[in-house]
Amino acid sequence: MRTIHVIGIGAGDPDYVTAQAVTALNDTDVFFAMDKGEAKSDLVALRRQICERFIDGDDCRFVELADPKRAKADDGSGYVQVVADWHEARAAVWARAIEAELGPDGVGAFLAWGDPSLYDSTLRILELVRRHVDIEYDVVPGITAIQALTARHRIPLNDVGEPVLITTGRQLRENGLDGAAVVMLDAECSFMECPPATHIWWGAYLGTPDELLVAGTVGEVGRRIVAMRADARARHGWIMDTYLLRAPN
Amino acid sequence: MRTIHVIGIGAGDPDYVTAQAVTALNDTDVFFAMDKGEAKSDLVALRRQICERFIDGDDCRFVELADPKRAKADDGSGYVQVVADWHEARAAVWARAIEAELGPDGVGAFLAWGDPSLYDSTLRILELVRRHVDIEYDVVPGITAIQALTARHRIPLNDVGEPVLITTGRQLRENGLDGAAVVMLDAECSFMECPPATHIWWGAYLGTPDELLVAGTVGEVGRRIVAMRADARARHGWIMDTYLLRAPN
Repeated sequence: MRTIHVIGIGAGDPDYVTAQAVTALNDTDVFFAMDKGEAKSDLVALRRQICERFIDGDDCRFVELADPKRAKADDGSGYVQVVADWHEARAAVWARAIEAELGPDGVGAFLAWGDPSLYDSTLRILELVRRHVDIEYDVVPGITAIQALTARHRIPLNDVGEPVLITTGRQLRENGLDGAAVVMLDAECSFMECPPATHIWWGAYLGTPDELLVAGTVGEVGRRIVAMRADARARHGWIMDTYLLRAPN
Repeated sequence: MRTIHVIGIGAGDPDYVTAQAVTALNDTDVFFAMDKGEAKSDLVALRRQICERFIDGDDCRFVELADPKRAKADDGSGYVQVVADWHEARAAVWARAIEAELGPDGVGAFLAWGDPSLYDSTLRILELVRRHVDIEYDVVPGITAIQALTARHRIPLNDVGEPVLITTGRQLRENGLDGAAVVMLDAECSFMECPPATHIWWGAYLGTPDELLVAGTVGEVGRRIVAMRADARARHGWIMDTYLLRAPN
């Protein structure tokens, strides 16, 4: 049967790659990758760098998959339905590519930035792929942006015995902050709506030479982060950032 | 100045070790380790196995630190104060050992299971150590039990666009489940207090040959997990487990 590895390659730094990921990279015949256009070409280069460093020999093959256009959530249907439809469309593309590119005992892989379990759709789409073509798949965990953030700031994620919420910018704006939260996928600097005494540890391009780190209270450093983020985004053409918030005691 | 690496060595499987951790392991002159007694000798053996596999040469040295006795929270003071006092006592022991065992430019390390940021006190204690002795320290992230759990169950951590709480058994019992939560440090099978239709993905000894995995609803598999956990704990003398809960829709 065809096998697919879903490989977490960590949050930016090639040194975040695990021994298990190296084994899986070397076990792979064909790497499937979404065509994300030119904007994130830094990421494409970084992915290539990881493959060149950790894969023995030159026999690895990349297959680019066209990414179906995603409808806008305001076209009448809700966000969850739009995402579900998009996953179905992706699954059909992926299934055709897996059948065409992998022999009956071939091994393919999808690489995920960070960890495949965290705000990543690969696992959901592969479950749908199985309706089209027989595959086995396994998952190789990777260092998430959350761990990269706390390591670079040298801070614990949780207070002693206390919980931490992993959430999105949208959820933060809707529900506010209760205790501590890590915010991902926030293009709108939602931390600015928190009280000024809220502590923030922010990081962008974590683990890369372009890494940015800022820590302080929202009142002290919030506007600086907003400006740095806009500037860096304009310069690179893309940004990936995340932050930890802790409500004042 | 003396340097200390705080190295996340991942959640059990030596293959979870990252390239960055391998570099830090090889940069270290002296490994400091808490003496946890005989009960967790499996973990001591596993730690030794990681060092033997990834460190070149035989020149690494382990120094065992006596662990100050921790008071009980019901001796009058609260849990947070008890932990703070214990951290102070540990910091004094660590500082003496760092001064005695490391030369003025020496490099020491503390190894953390999983990731140093998650329910681990090493970083808090090192901050206190700095009051006694001048050190620089850095943090190497590692694969947490949460990522090991989701990888082995091959599941996403979050629903699309939804948050996930990382919490403890005590917090779950006090506050109940709202949406999705990963529960750590739960010796009391607190999931049994959730409604029977709650989904649970449970794992113990993750990434090791003794790994146990169970998935289902609390009504279907809850009692089986309780029994397996008690049995495994009696057999091994210790257990480390974690689980993801998702409330029924």
